[in-house]
Amino acid sequence: MQSAPTPPSAPSRRALLTGLGLAAAAPLALGVTARPAPLGQPGRPGQPVQAGRTVLLRGASLVLTMDPSLGSGPLGAVENADVLMQNGTIAAVGPALQAPRGAWVVDASGKLAMPGFVDTHTHLWQAVIRGGCTDRDLFGWFQGCTDPQRGRLTPAALHSFVRLAALDAVQSGVTTLVDWVDIFAYDLIESYVRALAGTGVRFAYAMFPPKPDAVLVTKVKKELVDPVPLGSFQVATHAARAVQDLNRAHWEAAQDLGVMLNSHALERPEQRADDPIGVLTDIGALGPRLLINHAIHLTDAEIAAVAEHDVRAAHCPLSNMRLASGIMRLSEFRRRGVKVGLGLDGGTNDSSDFHALMKTAIGLQRARATDAGVYPQVHDVLRMATLGGAEALGIADRVGSLTPGKRADLVVIDPAALNFAPRFDWVGQIVFNGRPENVDAVFVDGRALKLGGRLVEVDTERVVREAEAAATRLRATA
Amino acid sequence: MQSAPTPPSAPSRRALLTGLGLAAAAPLALGVTARPAPLGQPGRPGQPVQAGRTVLLRGASLVLTMDPSLGSGPLGAVENADVLMQNGTIAAVGPALQAPRGAWVVDASGKLAMPGFVDTHTHLWQAVIRGGCTDRDLFGWFQGCTDPQRGRLTPAALHSFVRLAALDAVQSGVTTLVDWVDIFAYDLIESYVRALAGTGVRFAYAMFPPKPDAVLVTKVKKELVDPVPLGSFQVATHAARAVQDLNRAHWEAAQDLGVMLNSHALERPEQRADDPIGVLTDIGALGPRLLINHAIHLTDAEIAAVAEHDVRAAHCPLSNMRLASGIMRLSEFRRRGVKVGLGLDGGTNDSSDFHALMKTAIGLQRARATDAGVYPQVHDVLRMATLGGAEALGIADRVGSLTPGKRADLVVIDPAALNFAPRFDWVGQIVFNGRPENVDAVFVDGRALKLGGRLVEVDTERVVREAEAAATRLRATA
Repeated sequence: MQSAPTPPSAPSRRALLTGLGLAAAAPLALGVTARPAPLGQPGRPGQPVQAGRTVLLRGASLVLTMDPSLGSGPLGAVENADVLMQNGTIAAVGPALQAPRGAWVVDASGKLAMPGFVDTHTHLWQAVIRGGCTDRDLFGWFQGCTDPQRGRLTPAALHSFVRLAALDAVQSGVTTLVDWVDIFAYDLIESYVRALAGTGVRFAYAMFPPKPDAVLVTKVKKELVDPVPLGSFQVATHAARAVQDLNRAHWEAAQDLGVMLNSHALERPEQRADDPIGVLTDIGALGPRLLINHAIHLTDAEIAAVAEHDVRAAHCPLSNMRLASGIMRLSEFRRRGVKVGLGLDGGTNDSSDFHALMKTAIGLQRARATDAGVYPQVHDVLRMATLGGAEALGIADRVGSLTPGKRADLVVIDPAALNFAPRFDWVGQIVFNGRPENVDAVFVDGRALKLGGRLVEVDTERVVREAEAAATRLRATA
Repeated sequence: MQSAPTPPSAPSRRALLTGLGLAAAAPLALGVTARPAPLGQPGRPGQPVQAGRTVLLRGASLVLTMDPSLGSGPLGAVENADVLMQNGTIAAVGPALQAPRGAWVVDASGKLAMPGFVDTHTHLWQAVIRGGCTDRDLFGWFQGCTDPQRGRLTPAALHSFVRLAALDAVQSGVTTLVDWVDIFAYDLIESYVRALAGTGVRFAYAMFPPKPDAVLVTKVKKELVDPVPLGSFQVATHAARAVQDLNRAHWEAAQDLGVMLNSHALERPEQRADDPIGVLTDIGALGPRLLINHAIHLTDAEIAAVAEHDVRAAHCPLSNMRLASGIMRLSEFRRRGVKVGLGLDGGTNDSSDFHALMKTAIGLQRARATDAGVYPQVHDVLRMATLGGAEALGIADRVGSLTPGKRADLVVIDPAALNFAPRFDWVGQIVFNGRPENVDAVFVDGRALKLGGRLVEVDTERVVREAEAAATRLRATA
């Protein structure tokens, strides 16, 4: 963005808090020691960068709407278009839109706009073990890195790691994320949700309950997650014969609450012994309210069953390569029409770079096939990273494309960079040249979380410093 | 770098030009229309950022010297150390070094230092076709993207693309690169070399002569490359039975000039028909003066022959995934002791992200093996990206580690970033969390090319603008 933001009026602090999902959860937000960075744009204290929710993104050189009815090709591409956001929704996409009275006009000339990335599977707290256990597979990594760290976390430390990782996701262009969380105690969950809410990202908190405790699950949903405007709830599980009763209780809790069940499934070849798809079938969970993560080592019959019941899947290629988990049979899922999104997978991948994730989703299939024509292609991964992810999560009626009426979650990419220019095939360049640093602006629910290449109203140095201090304290207690 | 640079004295413009490799080639540098960005730090015109060549990097939290005799472990790690650079060389590495009189002290506290990345194989001019032909393999990509573009290039356009791509490599931490160039006409070569020289990067220009023309090859080396202090020369070829006589002439030219022969070899399975290793054997080229690129589809006997003759290899995993070329048998090369470096491979990879390259070099082998213990591990790729690359190129006596006496090519990485912090295993984090944006400073031959996260004395916007304008003109003539 070249032009300075010009808010039509100065909002109250409460209005801002509401927008960030904090006011409704105010007692929660203020009840923990480590508080979020103060609001107010850095260097302009007390001068909020935005107030009303009418934003006109003016003159983007290319808009990938992901809605073929709005533009050309499978990505619904429109050249030289404006995007109007009102009350947190996409109001219109097209050339030379009229700026409503009081609208905040953001110059996007020379830039590209598209829906924000939908991360269908992550574990943000694992920012505490970045770069750890690099020579281990999934089980070695659990043993050497996650398990020892998880038990040491305090609410304040957890807050600092989740905030850091969530903000990294946002600065990389992620506007929706699903966090599968294996943290148990209520005060830790409280801190986790508060950290997520404070970043302004749209999120689903997938809670892994340690035992079949419907009361606790309901309490977390009602007291902690439901009050956050951009928060939603899922029940997390890890399907395996040894814990089939727990899996069943989780599925029942998910049904009672009307939310998705979110399970890892066949990430490692050895997990064949757990028969997760068999378990999920036996407990009656196969259906559109089931999300399976990784889904690498499925048989043909299991993929067919998943497809038949419209089960959803999260593909995590960067994590799968790091952990030597294998290569998901993406073409087969595609052929059978399974809805698949992409996932960064937190600490087992270390990075929030969605451009690298898309590029790797393509390259990993090609590495196996020695054929550049295999699924997915550039337009497939761009769709998978946005609308496809939203479809997998069952929220495509609200996010994933720039269709008028949907929530205004979008990113602006600046191609005028040494690693991106000059223009040859911008769509290919987004996937193969793009880096998080090219993400110029990020809007979630019509609110700017990143502008001009910088996070809005975030003291990044403080966020990093507090995470570093928390990690130092954890090491001292090891 | 937090502290402002304080040059001990104002240098003459000529001294700066010499340092950038321009003065010796002054008639060349000034003879082409599109001139490099003017010297002088942006925002401080006429205030050169550096003058003498004595720089003390003060208090780096971790220095990976890549020299086990200087520190602990295979990477020669030293905590809380200084690095002294004098007259373009590493003078000393250790704690609390005395700052020589007039030294420019650069604060590196909290940061990591290591040798710069050595890119053993690239094609910078292909920045003109970024994001192109994304659904093609190598041959389709030649046909659809490189061949049509190559014929249209003017010296000025070529200069703008090479400069853009070389500066992207530098900002990503590359300090040495080998460019395999299939541009023929003398005026284009002149422009290419001038663009490389103007960036301050250490480079080898590998010239692919269209016919067995020893006169032209010698002329290019003597007139264009030799005058550039940081430039060196190689003869490029593409070994195949159909052009065996040309390959032989190229090898003879390389021998006459005392430089390496640089050949693609078995990138695609179909290139088995070309029998490149057989051809290189027959013409007598197998030896330490031969660099083979990609080297994916070699038989056991061919790998054994390569190893026996100490042939060097460039591994390009990001490119290989994009073009569906296959997976190099890196463990087998390692087992037999072949010297292998990493290559970004220009336009067939689209990115200069060496962190992604290292990460992918690990992940690609794991994808095939489903075993996280396979070669390479984190310390292997860090070595391969630096000293290993220098060994492959036969320049390890001068670059690749921070051994006193070697040329001062190093990068400083700032871990205080949302995508990198907090500290858990910094060595793993460099590979798995690092991004080009974390490269805080880059020194080549003791000269700072990047400082505080920004290229020094480069008008980046102008570089991008000129490349964009050149691309637009090329499209108009298509």
